[in-house]
Amino acid sequence: MRLHDHLTSGNGFKVRLLLSQLGVRYQRIEYDIDKRETRTPEFLERNPNGRVPVLELDDGTYLAESDAILWYLAEGTPYLPDDRRQRAEVLQWMFFEQYNHEPNIATVRYWITHRVPVTPLIELSMPAKRAQGEAALRVMEGHLGHRAFFVGDRYTIADIALYAYTHVAGEGGFDLAPFPQVRGWINRIAGQPGYIPITQG
Amino acid sequence: MRLHDHLTSGNGFKVRLLLSQLGVRYQRIEYDIDKRETRTPEFLERNPNGRVPVLELDDGTYLAESDAILWYLAEGTPYLPDDRRQRAEVLQWMFFEQYNHEPNIATVRYWITHRVPVTPLIELSMPAKRAQGEAALRVMEGHLGHRAFFVGDRYTIADIALYAYTHVAGEGGFDLAPFPQVRGWINRIAGQPGYIPITQG
Repeated sequence: MRLHDHLTSGNGFKVRLLLSQLGVRYQRIEYDIDKRETRTPEFLERNPNGRVPVLELDDGTYLAESDAILWYLAEGTPYLPDDRRQRAEVLQWMFFEQYNHEPNIATVRYWITHRVPVTPLIELSMPAKRAQGEAALRVMEGHLGHRAFFVGDRYTIADIALYAYTHVAGEGGFDLAPFPQVRGWINRIAGQPGYIPITQG
Repeated sequence: MRLHDHLTSGNGFKVRLLLSQLGVRYQRIEYDIDKRETRTPEFLERNPNGRVPVLELDDGTYLAESDAILWYLAEGTPYLPDDRRQRAEVLQWMFFEQYNHEPNIATVRYWITHRVPVTPLIELSMPAKRAQGEAALRVMEGHLGHRAFFVGDRYTIADIALYAYTHVAGEGGFDLAPFPQVRGWINRIAGQPGYIPITQG
């Protein structure tokens, strides 16, 4: 397998973390997203949406969208429950992550860490994204109040999906101090067998 | 089953359409989202994220996120393939829908049809959302260039997820004239057995 990736991407890290925990060997190909290397005609053949991560399977086909890749890789492993209801809950949290969490917490982190020039739109969007990101963290905090992990009291790809940008939320200026349950959960994930940091390519 | 819903919501319509096509009877409960009826303490017990649709199962538990609900309902039916690779593709398109399509096309439609007061942030966001919505339509047009449906040449919940806000994109001022493949696909979906319009509660 080959992973078309960008090292600081939390979406890419989700896949790297699960591949590490599954013990799957793969080749990683790095793209400079600031230089628009994922918008070249060659890359758009792999993913017409122009984004990493993209998983290239051994048959030469491509799969995009980090959470779809997690699902594909986790099927039949302990990282994805067998129970129909719990599987739907895993998806519920992964869609929450992509709709309510990532566009706020990851986007603000990207603007700051990649030093994106502050346009009037970015300046006006920042307070709303910060508020919506904090609202997502509050939803997570409430859910974790009486649970060790997001679904079925076991570490699953729902945790991986939400962990990726939560554990680096501070890089976007999000303060996790008011979210002790989230911080405890972050520590539990960092202690899972096969864990690797986001900086490890 | 009970569906906590808002009639003009495309996310709610996805679930209504599949329930109709599956022949499942259910009770529909309407919420006025402009009056913040999905942000009451009572509603937040059902979905802490404060959004419809929410599916209330017969055991009294709740499932949120439209595309997770689709997956739950379609499991074991012809609307979700059995093949592992195709299932991952269904998810790929559903995550694309929630990340690249809905926040642009559905949000602009909401602002216009619900006559949301035009704040400076909305005014500045509009051109970007329009451009990103059109980019999502271009990705769909390209994919449909040599396919009847999004995954496996068969009507699946990937089509339902993408159809919901695409077929009413005109209400948000998106012109589908430049997207003939998308228009043909819309017509194929409207011809599926059990089809109901978004206006039918």
